[in-house]
Amino acid sequence: MHKRLQAYLEYYREELQKAYTSRFDKLEIPANLKQSMLYSLDAGGKRLRPILLLASYEVYGQDVQKVMSSAIALEMIHTYSLIHDDLPAMDNDDYRRGMLTNHKKFDEATAILAGDALLTYSFELILDDPLLTSEEKIVLAKELAVCSGPKGMVGGQILDMEAEKQSVSLEAMEEIHALKTGELIRFAIFAGAYLANATDEQLHYLKQYAYYLGLIFQVQDDILDVSGEEEKLGKPVGSDELNEKSTYPKLLGLGGAIEQKEKYVQKAYESLKLADAEDSLLKALTDYFSQRDH
Amino acid sequence: MHKRLQAYLEYYREELQKAYTSRFDKLEIPANLKQSMLYSLDAGGKRLRPILLLASYEVYGQDVQKVMSSAIALEMIHTYSLIHDDLPAMDNDDYRRGMLTNHKKFDEATAILAGDALLTYSFELILDDPLLTSEEKIVLAKELAVCSGPKGMVGGQILDMEAEKQSVSLEAMEEIHALKTGELIRFAIFAGAYLANATDEQLHYLKQYAYYLGLIFQVQDDILDVSGEEEKLGKPVGSDELNEKSTYPKLLGLGGAIEQKEKYVQKAYESLKLADAEDSLLKALTDYFSQRDH
Repeated sequence: MHKRLQAYLEYYREELQKAYTSRFDKLEIPANLKQSMLYSLDAGGKRLRPILLLASYEVYGQDVQKVMSSAIALEMIHTYSLIHDDLPAMDNDDYRRGMLTNHKKFDEATAILAGDALLTYSFELILDDPLLTSEEKIVLAKELAVCSGPKGMVGGQILDMEAEKQSVSLEAMEEIHALKTGELIRFAIFAGAYLANATDEQLHYLKQYAYYLGLIFQVQDDILDVSGEEEKLGKPVGSDELNEKSTYPKLLGLGGAIEQKEKYVQKAYESLKLADAEDSLLKALTDYFSQRDH
Repeated sequence: MHKRLQAYLEYYREELQKAYTSRFDKLEIPANLKQSMLYSLDAGGKRLRPILLLASYEVYGQDVQKVMSSAIALEMIHTYSLIHDDLPAMDNDDYRRGMLTNHKKFDEATAILAGDALLTYSFELILDDPLLTSEEKIVLAKELAVCSGPKGMVGGQILDMEAEKQSVSLEAMEEIHALKTGELIRFAIFAGAYLANATDEQLHYLKQYAYYLGLIFQVQDDILDVSGEEEKLGKPVGSDELNEKSTYPKLLGLGGAIEQKEKYVQKAYESLKLADAEDSLLKALTDYFSQRDH
């Protein structure tokens, strides 16, 4: 990994943690609920989504404090979705990134409520941010609701459940991914650039970029589940096979999946160029995500 | 019940159903998710919260279309909380109002996601309403997040769980109720009056009113669980006793609980008077809720 990118990732992971920690310090809520919310937030690993948001902002804008509430809100939405996903009724996972999942560390009821609380509080964070104009608050909070709700992530989760244990086409699989993981990535890229006053044309091509980036992320996930190292992943390899999930390697073979990823990377590059973001950290992040080993 | 009140309740229940149905008709989301969301929305009985919102608006304002998105959003939040509350990990209820609970009708995973979807979509509804000004959207969506999130309803649910199987003081119990059920009632009363341009003084006293109304609602719930008729309630009587919950009858005796309710009713009347809402439907609703048999 480039030194510059690595330093960037480390720096912003720390900034994000500081930012949400200081907000939680001031938050007067039941202690057990706060602990449960923070447990899963702190367990967060790569901070992919908020870092994409920061990177997208920095293509066109300056002081990242402007986007910090949106970045944290996005990470909270992602975290809530993982807590609910891990529940026995859903994926029934006891561990995530080598740590106990929320419902194993606390209990199921607390985990459900901690997820609900993170989801709800994410909107308050944005709507209460003094650094945002009224227009910005409305656009961002509404977009967050669209991307994460029934038209977006939650819709994708339902489709994903329905597609389990049956073979689906590449197109159907990509539609599921576009909703389930793609919409939050789209929010990240949109929110950053929007708050940096990117033009409508730039936003248009960034939306395209976000679409391909989401697919890159997913195909690499599928590839790692076949060929990754358990120690780096922090989870068992081969779980997709076990769960009879439709994946890129299953539909295209491992070689085909890697080829497909390369196609998406080229598309992502093209979109970035058209959005005047060719030399930005977004490009380095695209490479990073397409080559990550965990 | 007064004929006028009855007609009012019936009329607005229909209006509310029409309003959310027309929104769901236009909503392009996975069919199974929509069915699950609508199943629980349609199963809604009294529509207490949105009707309070409409009644609060009508004390000072005219065309109720102005508050319809807030009223539906509130009912969706209430509905999501019931779906999650009924889950096996929480109250583990198979029936609600004589109908199968969401996770029994569908499955647990779908119920969790339908709850998440209702919660998230409620914010979109308000933020996307062309009848609201930017300022109104922000105030309402933020207030909804505060009332329903970790500082409000969800916080109350956590405290309620912690208080189970131990005896708590009347004060502690009332704090739990104020959060768990009171905050959504506060939102209802606030949102209606705010959108009708009530003065700050009126809003102040209405907040007091909402506090007492919430307690009235709770004490009557507790009373019905001891002395109600199962057929009217649509649920077994005595479940609080079974769940070792702290209730008004347990702390004060049945007679003491009824006396306490009367005190709250008087306080509620006083607050309404100070808010210039003495002769409004809110007063009739106060009586209705304090005397309801289901």
